[in-house]
Amino acid sequence: MKHPSPNPAFTVEPWALSTASGYQDQSMLDETLFALANGYLGTRGTAEEGAEEGQFSCEGTYLNGVYHSEEIQYGEVAYGYATHNQKMQQVPNGKVLQIFVDNEKVSQAQSLECQRRLDMQSASYQRELVWQSSQGKRLQVNYQRMASLSHPNLLCLRLEITALNFSGEISIKSILDAGYRFAANKSDPRVGQLSIADSLQLTRSELGHSDARMQHQVKDSPFLLCSGYDHHFSVPPLRTTQLDHDLQIGHQFEFALNQNKPLVVEKYVLYNHSRTMDDTTLKASHQSLMAEVRELGWDKLFAQHTEQVKAYWRNSDVVIDGDPAMQQGIRFNLLHLFMSVGKDGKSNIGAKGLTGHGYDGHYFWDTEIYILSFLSATNPALARHCLEYRYHTLDGARRRAREMSHPSGALYPWRTIGGDECSAFFPAGTAQYHINAAIAHAIKSYYLASGDWQFILEMGAEMLFETARLWLHLGHFNPRCDGRFCIDGVTGPDEYTAIVNNNFYTNAMAKAHLDFAVEVVDRFQREDSERWKSICHQLTLTEEEVALWQKAADLMYLPYDEKLGISPQDDSFLEKKPWDFANTPANQYPLLLHFHPLVIYRHQVLKQADVVLAMFLLDDAFPQELKARNLAYYEPLTTHDSTLSTCIHAIEFAETGDYEKAYEFFKDSVRMDLDNLHGNTEYGIHTACMAGSWMSIVNGFAGLRIRADKLVFNPSLPAHWRGFGFNLNCHGRHLHIQISARETRYQLLRGDNLEIEHQGKKVLLQKDQPLCLANQGDKA
Amino acid sequence: MKHPSPNPAFTVEPWALSTASGYQDQSMLDETLFALANGYLGTRGTAEEGAEEGQFSCEGTYLNGVYHSEEIQYGEVAYGYATHNQKMQQVPNGKVLQIFVDNEKVSQAQSLECQRRLDMQSASYQRELVWQSSQGKRLQVNYQRMASLSHPNLLCLRLEITALNFSGEISIKSILDAGYRFAANKSDPRVGQLSIADSLQLTRSELGHSDARMQHQVKDSPFLLCSGYDHHFSVPPLRTTQLDHDLQIGHQFEFALNQNKPLVVEKYVLYNHSRTMDDTTLKASHQSLMAEVRELGWDKLFAQHTEQVKAYWRNSDVVIDGDPAMQQGIRFNLLHLFMSVGKDGKSNIGAKGLTGHGYDGHYFWDTEIYILSFLSATNPALARHCLEYRYHTLDGARRRAREMSHPSGALYPWRTIGGDECSAFFPAGTAQYHINAAIAHAIKSYYLASGDWQFILEMGAEMLFETARLWLHLGHFNPRCDGRFCIDGVTGPDEYTAIVNNNFYTNAMAKAHLDFAVEVVDRFQREDSERWKSICHQLTLTEEEVALWQKAADLMYLPYDEKLGISPQDDSFLEKKPWDFANTPANQYPLLLHFHPLVIYRHQVLKQADVVLAMFLLDDAFPQELKARNLAYYEPLTTHDSTLSTCIHAIEFAETGDYEKAYEFFKDSVRMDLDNLHGNTEYGIHTACMAGSWMSIVNGFAGLRIRADKLVFNPSLPAHWRGFGFNLNCHGRHLHIQISARETRYQLLRGDNLEIEHQGKKVLLQKDQPLCLANQGDKA
Repeated sequence: MKHPSPNPAFTVEPWALSTASGYQDQSMLDETLFALANGYLGTRGTAEEGAEEGQFSCEGTYLNGVYHSEEIQYGEVAYGYATHNQKMQQVPNGKVLQIFVDNEKVSQAQSLECQRRLDMQSASYQRELVWQSSQGKRLQVNYQRMASLSHPNLLCLRLEITALNFSGEISIKSILDAGYRFAANKSDPRVGQLSIADSLQLTRSELGHSDARMQHQVKDSPFLLCSGYDHHFSVPPLRTTQLDHDLQIGHQFEFALNQNKPLVVEKYVLYNHSRTMDDTTLKASHQSLMAEVRELGWDKLFAQHTEQVKAYWRNSDVVIDGDPAMQQGIRFNLLHLFMSVGKDGKSNIGAKGLTGHGYDGHYFWDTEIYILSFLSATNPALARHCLEYRYHTLDGARRRAREMSHPSGALYPWRTIGGDECSAFFPAGTAQYHINAAIAHAIKSYYLASGDWQFILEMGAEMLFETARLWLHLGHFNPRCDGRFCIDGVTGPDEYTAIVNNNFYTNAMAKAHLDFAVEVVDRFQREDSERWKSICHQLTLTEEEVALWQKAADLMYLPYDEKLGISPQDDSFLEKKPWDFANTPANQYPLLLHFHPLVIYRHQVLKQADVVLAMFLLDDAFPQELKARNLAYYEPLTTHDSTLSTCIHAIEFAETGDYEKAYEFFKDSVRMDLDNLHGNTEYGIHTACMAGSWMSIVNGFAGLRIRADKLVFNPSLPAHWRGFGFNLNCHGRHLHIQISARETRYQLLRGDNLEIEHQGKKVLLQKDQPLCLANQGDKA
Repeated sequence: MKHPSPNPAFTVEPWALSTASGYQDQSMLDETLFALANGYLGTRGTAEEGAEEGQFSCEGTYLNGVYHSEEIQYGEVAYGYATHNQKMQQVPNGKVLQIFVDNEKVSQAQSLECQRRLDMQSASYQRELVWQSSQGKRLQVNYQRMASLSHPNLLCLRLEITALNFSGEISIKSILDAGYRFAANKSDPRVGQLSIADSLQLTRSELGHSDARMQHQVKDSPFLLCSGYDHHFSVPPLRTTQLDHDLQIGHQFEFALNQNKPLVVEKYVLYNHSRTMDDTTLKASHQSLMAEVRELGWDKLFAQHTEQVKAYWRNSDVVIDGDPAMQQGIRFNLLHLFMSVGKDGKSNIGAKGLTGHGYDGHYFWDTEIYILSFLSATNPALARHCLEYRYHTLDGARRRAREMSHPSGALYPWRTIGGDECSAFFPAGTAQYHINAAIAHAIKSYYLASGDWQFILEMGAEMLFETARLWLHLGHFNPRCDGRFCIDGVTGPDEYTAIVNNNFYTNAMAKAHLDFAVEVVDRFQREDSERWKSICHQLTLTEEEVALWQKAADLMYLPYDEKLGISPQDDSFLEKKPWDFANTPANQYPLLLHFHPLVIYRHQVLKQADVVLAMFLLDDAFPQELKARNLAYYEPLTTHDSTLSTCIHAIEFAETGDYEKAYEFFKDSVRMDLDNLHGNTEYGIHTACMAGSWMSIVNGFAGLRIRADKLVFNPSLPAHWRGFGFNLNCHGRHLHIQISARETRYQLLRGDNLEIEHQGKKVLLQKDQPLCLANQGDKA
């Protein structure tokens, strides 16, 4: 594994991503890294003046949970194929603020000085230019931008313009652009092949004194969309001209600038949408929101926004002492997770967040297995919102189960936004039935971490039971396998193998799923038998069916190879020819871009952790020795072509005592996007990998495992670090954990006394009584 | 298995398909059944006057081997996917001959009497109408049509019009229609969604005195196409008007008709194409062909055509005594095979022949495994042409092998016309590597039947070796399987299971392929070492590589299940849940139209013969007991949703002594199209099934197996029959075999004495000394 030095375009800082001196524009990559979002809206870090002619650029502003549908084309179609793709909606770009001096446009490309900075404490983006016109007029322009975390509909821009060596007029064009083109792929990103206008039908376009508004029906969707802006100026403009073009509306403002007297322009860009409101009601709602934010003004809005960010860091921050690049990486990741995650229970978190249109903005199991592992332990309310989203799409999952010939139950889609299956290649899509287990796992993790039984009552149980019952339709008690419960014809997490019998991961996760479903049934029966009866009635569930769940869980077939002492990935994996890694040059990775799926499928080669992931997720179900043997067998066969892989290996290497390797794998995930290690961050960040880097630290190096009755830690310190610390919000407590080479300091910041287990020893952690416990070198 | 009575629309006759009294038009089905072809051109049995308003119809005239390319659309694409589909070219319809009396069009729908007839002795189609105008003018119109088997470019129509109760003028519109629409699917066949004009670019359009000609560049293809006609009239027309529309050109001829004096109109429609000629040269070639056929005239052309058909029947006829419906079925099948098969070495035989655009006119393994089994034994020259086609596309197969990461060798496409892979769903496409073995099997069968070593020298060896070497790249000597040679990640003939390890059929056929390749190498080394050296040089083949072929063949892993005593279809098949046939209603078949592939894949359910097919094709490699056990295991799991299935089961039931079942399965294949048993003959005949019905009789009931040194027979007579007879052209001999309940009569019509084996006893068959040998009831 090669580890390049940190991206030289940026300085290594603990709380910021700032361009370094001698900075070279990385265009599309910068646009992703400087993107802002708040869970509802996201916008790429493109410039207010727009891209330069010939510059690689991919404009994009997105709304989470809003999509348009496109019919999926198949060369050969078959029964039950997903019919439509739901694509994350691109919305009009309200960032455009172009400054002209004597008809010359101020631009970063022509600037004398340029400094760009993502401030991670305030989740805001700043850009400072010094620019000079061809006649020598010099301007200092400071841009600031936030996707408000207190007002989810608001994207807010602030512009401070200072004439450094002249007084005179300037003009500012402020635009709402509903026709921008964006690049479909990197092969020729200069030409945006796709226009957002293709999916938007204008229903209203209005220009006021300093405000503008467009309403669109999103084509092939239930969504009505309103986009608009208004301004606040430190001095009123001399003149205002309205600009009313077909796909762009806006204003041109002329100002008199006095030397060294800054002009401040604030632009409030608001987006809102509805499935139910009519055009007029949506407009009224938009205007009411606009009045509110105008009333507050930039300073108050910024303060409220920053307060939200600070609260997040209190729950979530990780401090690394002794490795500034890693410190920067983990904070960047944690910030982007917060900015990306949907917070309304109707949306989720895309594999690329809201920073690019990669994967069409789809939600995957990434949410449940990676992102919720982090959120459940630190920000349980955010975790709950993601699960609520799944509940709101449960009916879609029920429909999909029927399409797949399951007479009852629910099958969640492999990739989706609105809840319908959007995967156009079922062997690496619908075949991944483990999505159901992932959702059950996340419900369990959230419940273990939060103790939120109310959520189980309201939503969790229904999801859990509807997904659980599907396993019984899918699998069978196999007489040729001593009556063990076998699951055939599925694909596990490793997409370099497809449609197999008894994928170890799937079977193991299904067993855990069924066991937990039965546990929840037990609690209902013990504590709330009325409620249990009503659930049974609602879901036509019987005691007999629950008994079958238990039987399937008890008899679940988990393949084991006696000779190798490992868990075979599936019934046929070990029989295959090993991949010829020695003769695969570096430029042939990722394999999926250089080999036909059949070539990959017939070899022992993994895209990502599969058995190894099960070893982590179900960690108390397997002995350490098995984990170590599985890791030793599978890691050399794993390409890590998926960004979901190295973090899991980091955790498992840590758990089995190989700290050096754990650190190597961690390094690969923590700066994945910052250093563009997979070469595709141009189209968006990798949210699962970001969460995975937190997991590497907390579940890996600190060895955290959340049990129903306690928290388990098994701390170790990477050799390169002096120490690290992090916060948790578990079991209703707020904790701080600080790990050095010698000892671990546990501090209960809020909540009742709590049992923890430190390297195998149970201790009671009490309020205001931090515990300092020595770390044993050898955890075995 | 349900067997409906023979299609009541037709009388049961030995040499014809004639409409019965009270005949109801079956529109699209009739169009297929009355289609004509000659291997180069094919045209559906649509009426000269065109379809009626609102009539279900699918017009179509096709050229074999001529196609246009269309980009394949994928919702999610991956490396190495087939990029373009090659679609059989629809060409202008020259059949249009509309008769008008007082501006009323003569049509079948408005006729007083109508009789339609496919004459199987002359491969011609006749239609006789009695029609009356609204003013009571009555016409007898006799249409006749042939796709000339002596002049492959020629479609010839003849019209005899007799005024029965009047004398007066009539007019005839003769059209060449380059804009007709055809139905894409049966869901709404009345509206043709597709127009042939979409794929044709007009380059020349010319109208002469009685002739017309259009030239087109076939879009996205290398083909230039010329279509044209000329006429011969028994009396000259009174007036001629040229009709020159955008997509249709033609003539209107006015004639004076005398009562009871027939007017005869002959229309010569010619099609030719070229990859290399320019527009002018192609026209000249067309005109020269036209001059030739005009010079010959209908009678001579018809005589020459009929001579070809007669010769075919001498080689190929099967006579069934005691079952007229079966007799009609087998002759219908054999005629269509002759009409469909490409005869120029540059084309092949489509799964639907030239009778409809089903499967886009693609060639599959159907040719090698089914159709060549019949042709090699009866018409070796035709068999050779099909193999020559494969040789001409060997370079495409080499390219495809490289795309699939095989460093040498050739991988034939699963479906194609021009030689490129056209399968848009690789799990049931490119994954069917057994296509290579099918071609090798056909080379061997042809060679065994014909002894044509010259073909091996010129083409066969190169194909055989290039395809053989691929197995070594594909499979591996598996240390976990005692070093046996295993082949992973392929799909066998049964497409209800996909991408498996060690598909029994594939492994067994690969073994036979490699064994035969080594045999051929041996003969080269013994007889022509110079040639062998040059082949080695040309193909960079070494003795070491050939030794590896032998090693792989010797160590080929052929799965066997001790407990069940059967051959598992693949490594995982027997582990799966059996399909719930009891709860699958009849309207849920074929399963592929009612269940997602994943649902089908995870069950023990077959679309078609897989292991059972290997039992037949490699018949001397397996003991009778194993064949019987495999048949008993797999047949109940087989839906026969493919038309390639029942014929193979008929053969294997016959071979293992269950004659009653053999006959049941045979019945299902022999009138498959005539009785439209699979409900899709509207879009074309099923050529493989047609050949399969011959195989059921000859390889099944007569038990023919062709060995290098002899012919083996194991005759039995279906209980319903009095006897049956057939001809063979094997080992350079022409034989007639006649089987009754009591005895079998072998007659050598031409060629040297020959050893045959009759029910296990070897005898010498000599010229002019027919042998009558008693049939033993029990063949075991």
